[in-house]
Amino acid sequence: MQVKPLGDRVLVKLVEEQERTQSGIYIPDTAKDKPQTGLIVAVGDGEDIKVKEGQRVLFAKFAGTEIKIGNEEHLILSTDDILAVVED
Amino acid sequence: MQVKPLGDRVLVKLVEEQERTQSGIYIPDTAKDKPQTGLIVAVGDGEDIKVKEGQRVLFAKFAGTEIKIGNEEHLILSTDDILAVVED
Amino acid sequence: MQVKPLGDRVLVKLVEEQERTQSGIYIPDTAKDKPQTGLIVAVGDGEDIKVKEGQRVLFAKFAGTEIKIGNEEHLILSTDDILAVVED
Amino acid sequence: MQVKPLGDRVLVKLVEEQERTQSGIYIPDTAKDKPQTGLIVAVGDGEDIKVKEGQRVLFAKFAGTEIKIGNEEHLILSTDDILAVVED
Amino acid sequence: MQVKPLGDRVLVKLVEEQERTQSGIYIPDTAKDKPQTGLIVAVGDGEDIKVKEGQRVLFAKFAGTEIKIGNEEHLILSTDDILAVVED
Amino acid sequence: MQVKPLGDRVLVKLVEEQERTQSGIYIPDTAKDKPQTGLIVAVGDGEDIKVKEGQRVLFAKFAGTEIKIGNEEHLILSTDDILAVVED
Amino acid sequence: MQVKPLGDRVLVKLVEEQERTQSGIYIPDTAKDKPQTGLIVAVGDGEDIKVKEGQRVLFAKFAGTEIKIGNEEHLILSTDDILAVVED
Repeated sequence: MQVKPLGDRVLVKLVEEQERTQSGIYIPDTAKDKPQTGLIVAVGDGEDIKVKEGQRVLFAKFAGTEIKIGNEEHLILSTDDILAVVED
Repeated sequence: MQVKPLGDRVLVKLVEEQERTQSGIYIPDTAKDKPQTGLIVAVGDGEDIKVKEGQRVLFAKFAGTEIKIGNEEHLILSTDDILAVVED
Repeated sequence: MQVKPLGDRVLVKLVEEQERTQSGIYIPDTAKDKPQTGLIVAVGDGEDIKVKEGQRVLFAKFAGTEIKIGNEEHLILSTDDILAVVED
Repeated sequence: MQVKPLGDRVLVKLVEEQERTQSGIYIPDTAKDKPQTGLIVAVGDGEDIKVKEGQRVLFAKFAGTEIKIGNEEHLILSTDDILAVVED
Repeated sequence: MQVKPLGDRVLVKLVEEQERTQSGIYIPDTAKDKPQTGLIVAVGDGEDIKVKEGQRVLFAKFAGTEIKIGNEEHLILSTDDILAVVED
Repeated sequence: MQVKPLGDRVLVKLVEEQERTQSGIYIPDTAKDKPQTGLIVAVGDGEDIKVKEGQRVLFAKFAGTEIKIGNEEHLILSTDDILAVVED
Repeated sequence: MQVKPLGDRVLVKLVEEQERTQSGIYIPDTAKDKPQTGLIVAVGDGEDIKVKEGQRVLFAKFAGTEIKIGNEEHLILSTDDILAVVED
């Protein structure tokens, strides 16, 4: 079974806290607008999408729509809500 | 009798909870913006419609306008409110 | 006397509850955004109007402006507020 | 003395209640958005104006800006607020 | 000293109540959106300005920014807030 | 050290009250939207900027972002917030 | 590890208070909309970005999304939120 995002949306698998800390990005508890990281697992067919599968991305915490696929938490996000790509 | 959506709208037949679980998509009760799945049964004549009859789609729970056709629950949705296509 | 809607507006004659039920469309009392059906009796001269006189249409209940012509209830609606055409 | 509306605005002389009833249009007291009728006495120079002097028009009650010219009540209305032309 | 409005703005010298009454325009106390008249004393260089110095204009009362030049009350108004030109 | 405004922004040095009164512009205490005058000391590189360094300008009091450069109060303003140029 | 801002966003490393005072820019405590300075460390690939790495910039305090990279506070900012470039 596959979830194919429409238009400018992407499907992001949420990344564990631990993983984030190892990468050196730390989101302070007092941050006014806490971002979150995830792994892109599918992208829509919109022309303006500049991210691709496999990239780790940073996005605003309250963006998107949560779904679980199997047991794993995912978000469907508009590409506009992705703030940055994180490379190791 | 037929309901033909206008413009960029689609007519979606709501899918039972059980069916959703079988497909492996599960929407957590605590989700901030619970999505819902349905089956597209008619599409409008808008140029930007990229879904078609027979597709199973995921959309934000509070999107669209509810109607019953016969005994079955349907929604008339703007195509923009469809987040993803679900394929088995 | 005639009421000619301007631009993208249409004049809709409201359809009785009974009539709606016969057509098989039923709007649940608990619907969050109850639609209503009516008969188009006049259309404006807007270029984007894709409905015509005589069609039965479905629209959001709180859309438009109510007027009575003679003793019959009508609505002047923007064509954007029409969700679907209902055919028998 | 003349009041010349600018752009897409029109100057409308308000029509008495009695007159409206004779024409067969009746606005129910319980209407959620009561329209009102008037006579167009001047139009602006906007390109999109499709009404003309002498037409009787229907508009939303709370639209426009009231002025009295001599003793007669008028409204300066945007042409977008005119819902329909009423012909006898 | 000169005040030169920028863009689509105009400088309007406020007209006394008495003057307005003589011209036959009277704004009722109960008007929901009381207009006011004034004399245009300077216009900006915007392309869409269709009024000129010396014209008497009608505008919504709460539009614009008040300034006093010498002892005289003026308003800097966007040209969009001017409803009509008043000619004698 | 220099502060270079970006895009359509300008840097304005605030002008003392006394200076404003001498120029004949007086902003009444009861003004609903008190404007303020200042001297443009730097302009951005936006194409639509029609003011230049050295001009005295009038702007809405609550527009812009305050900074002190050395001991002098300045504002970074969008050029749209400038109502008029004041010439002596 | 690198954080690459997307589109018109930039990554800004926050600058200490002391540093700001030395440069002669001082933001008053009573400022209605306190700006803040920072150093641009990465820029997105948006066409309209007119700032570059290494520039010190001034931005509205409540703009952007906070992240820590290692131990250092950063912001991901839309380029529109950058008010000015500060040069020494």
